[in-house]
Amino acid sequence: MNEQIVKDIMNLIESSSDCVSCSVDENGFPNAKVMFKAENEGIRNIWFSTNLSAIRTQQWLKNPKASVYFRKSDEFFGLNLTGRIRVHTDNETKQRFWKQGDEQYYPLGVTDPDYCVLCFTSENGNCYKAGEKYTFSLGNNINLTTYKYDNKWIPEQTIENKYL
Amino acid sequence: MNEQIVKDIMNLIESSSDCVSCSVDENGFPNAKVMFKAENEGIRNIWFSTNLSAIRTQQWLKNPKASVYFRKSDEFFGLNLTGRIRVHTDNETKQRFWKQGDEQYYPLGVTDPDYCVLCFTSENGNCYKAGEKYTFSLGNNINLTTYKYDNKWIPEQTIENKYL
Repeated sequence: MNEQIVKDIMNLIESSSDCVSCSVDENGFPNAKVMFKAENEGIRNIWFSTNLSAIRTQQWLKNPKASVYFRKSDEFFGLNLTGRIRVHTDNETKQRFWKQGDEQYYPLGVTDPDYCVLCFTSENGNCYKAGEKYTFSLGNNINLTTYKYDNKWIPEQTIENKYL
Repeated sequence: MNEQIVKDIMNLIESSSDCVSCSVDENGFPNAKVMFKAENEGIRNIWFSTNLSAIRTQQWLKNPKASVYFRKSDEFFGLNLTGRIRVHTDNETKQRFWKQGDEQYYPLGVTDPDYCVLCFTSENGNCYKAGEKYTFSLGNNINLTTYKYDNKWIPEQTIENKYL
């Protein structure tokens, strides 16, 4: 079961084209926005192309703390990852993620100063799937805690899992 | 156009059965989760039923700063509202939002100590719709700022609007 939920988490990220990303603004309020996923390296790193002038990019430059949220509504499956976002503005990284058609968003092309690349790196997470609840932390491996409901949510057991 | 976007924002909230809500945890990271909307009073107050023992409810008890995010993917329409969440545990409020079928989530019924009601009150917001960008603040009225894109997003004009 615990190996299965880790596989399910991987599959959810792999199969998602977008997610809701969150920043924390200068007044301490969370701010959310849908972002299209450019690429992911397992559960660890998730990459996005976006505008450097966007509200949230500016917030992450000041405060890199972030979350990304993936969901599959028909399975009552929601995954929240918390971690940090790094804003890449170097031409090598920008070139790596540039796609045909990006000119419509960044008219000056791959070197457009308003085009940048974000890398979210996961540190912790929690998910709900079909009434089950899990939390986890990411070190070299993933440490997964399962919960049971007995008038309130109670941590049940923690298992180290090598899937990453 | 500005009256239209305010109407569109209202309609988006009214027609949505759920949204992605965000809290800020004790380490300053944003945390997201889908929540089903119980009720809304215009754009101002949005109500939810949930577990008192849930991770995010516990976070809002310590730090009420929150956001709720609504989207309509087929219209490229995303709305982020920031504000505060108040956790209601009194029986009068719990009774008001109790629905048939809630027993499956709160087996002890309407007085179940793990059943509570959240009220999100909006203070600011931003939205994207079909390539247009807006920010706004909520006082007695709504003050809406439109943006234009000229190599980066630039505020264009602010208009006070009485729709609320």
